[in-house]
Amino acid sequence: MRASDLTVEYPTVTMSTPAIEAARILAGGDLPGLIVVDDDGKPLLVLPGTQVLRLAVPPYCQDDPALARVIDEAAADVFIRELDGRTVQECLPEKPKELPVVEGRATALEMAAMMARTRSPLVAVTAADGTLAGVVTIHALLDRVLGESA
Amino acid sequence: MRASDLTVEYPTVTMSTPAIEAARILAGGDLPGLIVVDDDGKPLLVLPGTQVLRLAVPPYCQDDPALARVIDEAAADVFIRELDGRTVQECLPEKPKELPVVEGRATALEMAAMMARTRSPLVAVTAADGTLAGVVTIHALLDRVLGESA
Repeated sequence: MRASDLTVEYPTVTMSTPAIEAARILAGGDLPGLIVVDDDGKPLLVLPGTQVLRLAVPPYCQDDPALARVIDEAAADVFIRELDGRTVQECLPEKPKELPVVEGRATALEMAAMMARTRSPLVAVTAADGTLAGVVTIHALLDRVLGESA
Repeated sequence: MRASDLTVEYPTVTMSTPAIEAARILAGGDLPGLIVVDDDGKPLLVLPGTQVLRLAVPPYCQDDPALARVIDEAAADVFIRELDGRTVQECLPEKPKELPVVEGRATALEMAAMMARTRSPLVAVTAADGTLAGVVTIHALLDRVLGESA
């Protein structure tokens, strides 16, 4: 089995997509993460759901749980408003070291190792011209390899 | 809104659950991760899906993509057999620094900051006696905070 056998179409965002829209796409589709593509349709970034959430968490709360705890309940309910008026690009964290992107001929083990290493529950799969062919999710991969081993 | 408002019941595993069974529970329920509880029902570990997958990826493939690439397709399809006969405990990686576990009175922002920091798409919620009350998933949290901000 190769990546191309499990690749499915998937919603994408761009650097100029409003960040709140990106959060809604993730939540609305119960997606494991989002793919950011450039103007040529090539994958720029793969954001696991937790890192989409990270876009909205005020920086002073991210590394110190005690600071998040002093924000009162009413203010804590609306932290997502931090995203208002900002694009995906304006909310992005530091550049990740390794992108979970594979070619269509990647094997099940390559995809599993990449998901584990990058902690990403989805990998982007590229076509021969480098554009996004779709994604493979952790659940699609597990369903397949558990079936093969049964 | 507090963690207890969004907490839902959730499947658990123990250290002695067969690892292949843990992978099946994750895949079968399309779950974002698994909670490992002790004999008293207290959460010991929260394993994001990618870290459950990690249990099955041979260590020599985890940190070097080139090594995963030399395994042929047929062998790569059945890597999950590495889990056969092993328990969750026997497959566990090094102890994580911080567990995504909160009390029922944790706010939306505390949960979001914890998910972002620990890269976990679910947090375990404990009852007053320290046992697992259930979990809050990233999608439940996002649906709620996006609704509050609309």
